[in-house]
Amino acid sequence: MNRIKRIGVLTSGGDAPGMNAAIRAVARASLYHGISVCGIIKGYTGLIENNIIELTVENVSNIIQRGGTILKTARSHEFETPEGRARAYQVIQENEIDGLVVIGGDGSLTGARLLANEHNLPIVGIPATIDNDLAGTDLTIGYTTALNTIMDAVDKLRDTASSHERIFFVEVMGRESGFLALNGAIATGSEGALIPEDPTSTESLKKMIESGFRKTKSSSIILVTESGEREGQTLFIADDFKRRYPNFDIRVTILGHLQRGGIPCATDRIMGSRMGAAAVQALLDEQRNVMIGYDNDEIVYVPFVKATKKQKRIDPDLIDLLHMLSI
Amino acid sequence: MNRIKRIGVLTSGGDAPGMNAAIRAVARASLYHGISVCGIIKGYTGLIENNIIELTVENVSNIIQRGGTILKTARSHEFETPEGRARAYQVIQENEIDGLVVIGGDGSLTGARLLANEHNLPIVGIPATIDNDLAGTDLTIGYTTALNTIMDAVDKLRDTASSHERIFFVEVMGRESGFLALNGAIATGSEGALIPEDPTSTESLKKMIESGFRKTKSSSIILVTESGEREGQTLFIADDFKRRYPNFDIRVTILGHLQRGGIPCATDRIMGSRMGAAAVQALLDEQRNVMIGYDNDEIVYVPFVKATKKQKRIDPDLIDLLHMLSI
Amino acid sequence: MNRIKRIGVLTSGGDAPGMNAAIRAVARASLYHGISVCGIIKGYTGLIENNIIELTVENVSNIIQRGGTILKTARSHEFETPEGRARAYQVIQENEIDGLVVIGGDGSLTGARLLANEHNLPIVGIPATIDNDLAGTDLTIGYTTALNTIMDAVDKLRDTASSHERIFFVEVMGRESGFLALNGAIATGSEGALIPEDPTSTESLKKMIESGFRKTKSSSIILVTESGEREGQTLFIADDFKRRYPNFDIRVTILGHLQRGGIPCATDRIMGSRMGAAAVQALLDEQRNVMIGYDNDEIVYVPFVKATKKQKRIDPDLIDLLHMLSI
Amino acid sequence: MNRIKRIGVLTSGGDAPGMNAAIRAVARASLYHGISVCGIIKGYTGLIENNIIELTVENVSNIIQRGGTILKTARSHEFETPEGRARAYQVIQENEIDGLVVIGGDGSLTGARLLANEHNLPIVGIPATIDNDLAGTDLTIGYTTALNTIMDAVDKLRDTASSHERIFFVEVMGRESGFLALNGAIATGSEGALIPEDPTSTESLKKMIESGFRKTKSSSIILVTESGEREGQTLFIADDFKRRYPNFDIRVTILGHLQRGGIPCATDRIMGSRMGAAAVQALLDEQRNVMIGYDNDEIVYVPFVKATKKQKRIDPDLIDLLHMLSI
Repeated sequence: MNRIKRIGVLTSGGDAPGMNAAIRAVARASLYHGISVCGIIKGYTGLIENNIIELTVENVSNIIQRGGTILKTARSHEFETPEGRARAYQVIQENEIDGLVVIGGDGSLTGARLLANEHNLPIVGIPATIDNDLAGTDLTIGYTTALNTIMDAVDKLRDTASSHERIFFVEVMGRESGFLALNGAIATGSEGALIPEDPTSTESLKKMIESGFRKTKSSSIILVTESGEREGQTLFIADDFKRRYPNFDIRVTILGHLQRGGIPCATDRIMGSRMGAAAVQALLDEQRNVMIGYDNDEIVYVPFVKATKKQKRIDPDLIDLLHMLSI
Repeated sequence: MNRIKRIGVLTSGGDAPGMNAAIRAVARASLYHGISVCGIIKGYTGLIENNIIELTVENVSNIIQRGGTILKTARSHEFETPEGRARAYQVIQENEIDGLVVIGGDGSLTGARLLANEHNLPIVGIPATIDNDLAGTDLTIGYTTALNTIMDAVDKLRDTASSHERIFFVEVMGRESGFLALNGAIATGSEGALIPEDPTSTESLKKMIESGFRKTKSSSIILVTESGEREGQTLFIADDFKRRYPNFDIRVTILGHLQRGGIPCATDRIMGSRMGAAAVQALLDEQRNVMIGYDNDEIVYVPFVKATKKQKRIDPDLIDLLHMLSI
Repeated sequence: MNRIKRIGVLTSGGDAPGMNAAIRAVARASLYHGISVCGIIKGYTGLIENNIIELTVENVSNIIQRGGTILKTARSHEFETPEGRARAYQVIQENEIDGLVVIGGDGSLTGARLLANEHNLPIVGIPATIDNDLAGTDLTIGYTTALNTIMDAVDKLRDTASSHERIFFVEVMGRESGFLALNGAIATGSEGALIPEDPTSTESLKKMIESGFRKTKSSSIILVTESGEREGQTLFIADDFKRRYPNFDIRVTILGHLQRGGIPCATDRIMGSRMGAAAVQALLDEQRNVMIGYDNDEIVYVPFVKATKKQKRIDPDLIDLLHMLSI
Repeated sequence: MNRIKRIGVLTSGGDAPGMNAAIRAVARASLYHGISVCGIIKGYTGLIENNIIELTVENVSNIIQRGGTILKTARSHEFETPEGRARAYQVIQENEIDGLVVIGGDGSLTGARLLANEHNLPIVGIPATIDNDLAGTDLTIGYTTALNTIMDAVDKLRDTASSHERIFFVEVMGRESGFLALNGAIATGSEGALIPEDPTSTESLKKMIESGFRKTKSSSIILVTESGEREGQTLFIADDFKRRYPNFDIRVTILGHLQRGGIPCATDRIMGSRMGAAAVQALLDEQRNVMIGYDNDEIVYVPFVKATKKQKRIDPDLIDLLHMLSI
């Protein structure tokens, strides 16, 4: 007989389109199985502050097509401390939550793992981050939508007045990970990608410029992974290029936080739906401390310790592919 | 030393968004490796008629973002005969084509297999069909874009004036395969999907209506796989429902051929790019009679005999998922 | 001193994207002026049934970007009778509503005019219908979004496999008005439009086919205004063409109700915002029985009697323009 | 008897979506009237360099839905001199061009006016600039598409993780004109717009922040007209706000040149089509030195001297509207 009577679900970290599909699936799969389910507002902050609402069939209606997360997210410094997590566990007990579903990225799942280790609570994670920087799953929720957002932006740039002496730099998200920049560049037929995994990429770009871009190119578009904590570093890269290549007309687009929003694409909605239902099933099956992953179009369970961003690497073949196709 | 000096590429069967990304990648990867490359216009028809153009770095520029196929497609009855294929092979020899890349669906790859068997020609297939009905690959080129097209359409329907006694039927493509209808329904939070793989689905829908839809539902949307050769059968299903349930306001949308068009999404562009480059590499590696597949985000080679639509099945868990989430 | 203390707002008739922008503007402009404001749910039905909610700054937040109407619409037979309108007026008095804003099309404004005539109530109308069939205003709310929806659909069709013997018929909304079909055809470079205002259009199309389409045309797309009460008549037109021209591959798309939904475009949101604020201002200025119109990018007041669909005509120059540009 | 036998058409200045619709209409309307027509590549530069192609029914096919301009644009310093214009006129004579259609913004039309004054050449202008800063027409080609591009971007931002202490600055185009920022802000329900026409807007924003944003606001979005010649000044505004309001999380998006691209919306395509045909008609009617304008959904002719950007003012009511609706 199953001990799970009530499930809680929260979203944590940066928004990722498709989180709502996962929330809806956790809620409806729970209710379908006769389990009550509640939503914790603003991630771990809301957990500590007991900011919790009941989820029903109705209040997760009509959310699958919305960007963002109806449960909101926040970053909680308190939860990073054992005391914070103890307080969170106390709230979980007060709310009679038997199992927790955490939807988020690397940091959120690390928090989940600590909470699970320190207290006797079954937790299942769902990978959701536009950066796609989590090992153990082919894709994270939100990544495919963000890639399409970047693609739409770059397609528009490609339309504009063209001369082979114009270079567009487009800053995209990714933190320490070049997935969005590299795959965004492949998807748009861009001329280059400056990514953290390829420290030579700036030098190759300069070499490409100095040896003369292909004469038939109408313009050159370079995707750049944002560096550090804030938007805008690409402006300084552009200034450096302007000084070095004064004949070139160099332009900058900084996409910024809009990459976290937008209507989720079908892939993210289906993945969110499948992972949400699978997370409930995992708790019913007495799984704990696993992340739901997508492997070869199948649902898999990944132990928390394997679901870290350190182990997810960019396929170097993709870097070669970009070079080959942008001749 | 490699014997491949010149590659030909053609698209065949129904259009699929992303075909242009594959054409571009075949062309540029060939040229990158110092191999000349030509495009055959209108599929096997153009092959028989010697309708062939040279591909260059320039004439595949700025096509990655376009729907359709710059090489056009056609269906050829003549190619279905041994005599037609012999004529095609003669044209291939006249054009000194050493290796052929065929981009298309089940029928196109069957044609490729026959041509390869009857004549001594290395052929590599790239799976491209919006129906996703090919075994040996997680995804076919065009499927993900078509799914997003359907999703956009159904999202718009969901917005409209709502009463729980309104039913929208949306006819989608798929021929004998319910991938688009079922996954489209999951992606949009639709209430049901009438698909060929689930012969009870019409009866379940009637039962659902008779037992009373959930009162809080604002409207019900049912995706229907088109049946047979032409659009519009769903109008007759709708008429049947109208007679049976005269209190319901029943509306029909027939998406039709627009599902084959549209700007390809990032997934289809990246997959087209990777598969196109892989097809050239396969020919260089003296592979023949294989289809390029996508398995777990990796490129694989699939023998033609395994790449048939008979072996691709809908995961029954997805049918259950749709029921569970549409409560 | 102004006698208006409380405004009510309702949406009526078919949904039109941008209605939410108008609701938001009525609510916020009222509150800005210190007037309380309530929303009537489901149009005149909700008025008769006293189905009314208070509107606040918050509950109209984040709706400007949503299709449909948060107040819902319905068609009310009871309101078509003097008794029904008397009941409605009683509810208005019970709710101490001093001024009413009615957002809708021709039928809705006719209802408003009758209510205003029979009872002493200031009413201001806002034209909202995707059909654009209201005189007194250059544009109605929702029309531009619907036109863009049709355009997106036809653009996708244009991508698909092309032969000059393929004809696509696309059924669009409009009831007795060809605005959507004709302007949709111009916007997409379509080959023809079958519209109620041009009874010869079917015959011209047949003549065009018989004299041979231009050989360089890749395919022909014809937009058709839906006829009568239900979707699908275009299938029968297509069947007629198939019998007559058996060599042509003839395909049909029925867009149906999705044309009423979708994210409103900027034009509809701005117009909704301006008209909503103007409607409140008109009530404050002791205007009554006027519709807010858009004339030359300026807000105008149009007496109800002039705001009828009979007086809005298609510009025949546009029919000529379509013929001229589709050579 | 009409003296026009051959028309030339060029696009000049920044790209604007819808330019291709105008080119197509100029070409097809000319051919429809039995006049030959040629396209000048890269604007006035191409005119001086005799870079001219013949336009046919076919080579303007399938361009109405494309962003950018198939004729390309460039800025020509030589054309700013009388000598340059004399050289241009010589090329016009060599090509037997009787009438010229210039598609572009303020600077382009000024050039046209000078050329027409100095040489005996009928010229008709078509207003095309995303900035909408031309008097004499309600709308310029490209403006509505750019507004929708901005709207899509801001809608995505609105989805993201929300706290009332987060401010997003979004830099949009416009040069000395706030149309895009102000109407973009209205269309998206943004909290403010920093525009050149309202020098107090930065101070009002600071006041708004200091008096405390409304507590229920999930986040605040401010649209900023780019200043000067290059992208990115908004980063410095953001830095100033960060220093002043360290508790706020302040984020920046710089849309940049992508605002000049994108699939043209229906409004721009229809306007481009109508204006293109009207420009040909104007030349046939022996009009010269006029710009085609849109006034109250009708085509009008505007003398060049009135079609300047100095005379186009932002309606101050719209500034008030934004304040009223963002309470």
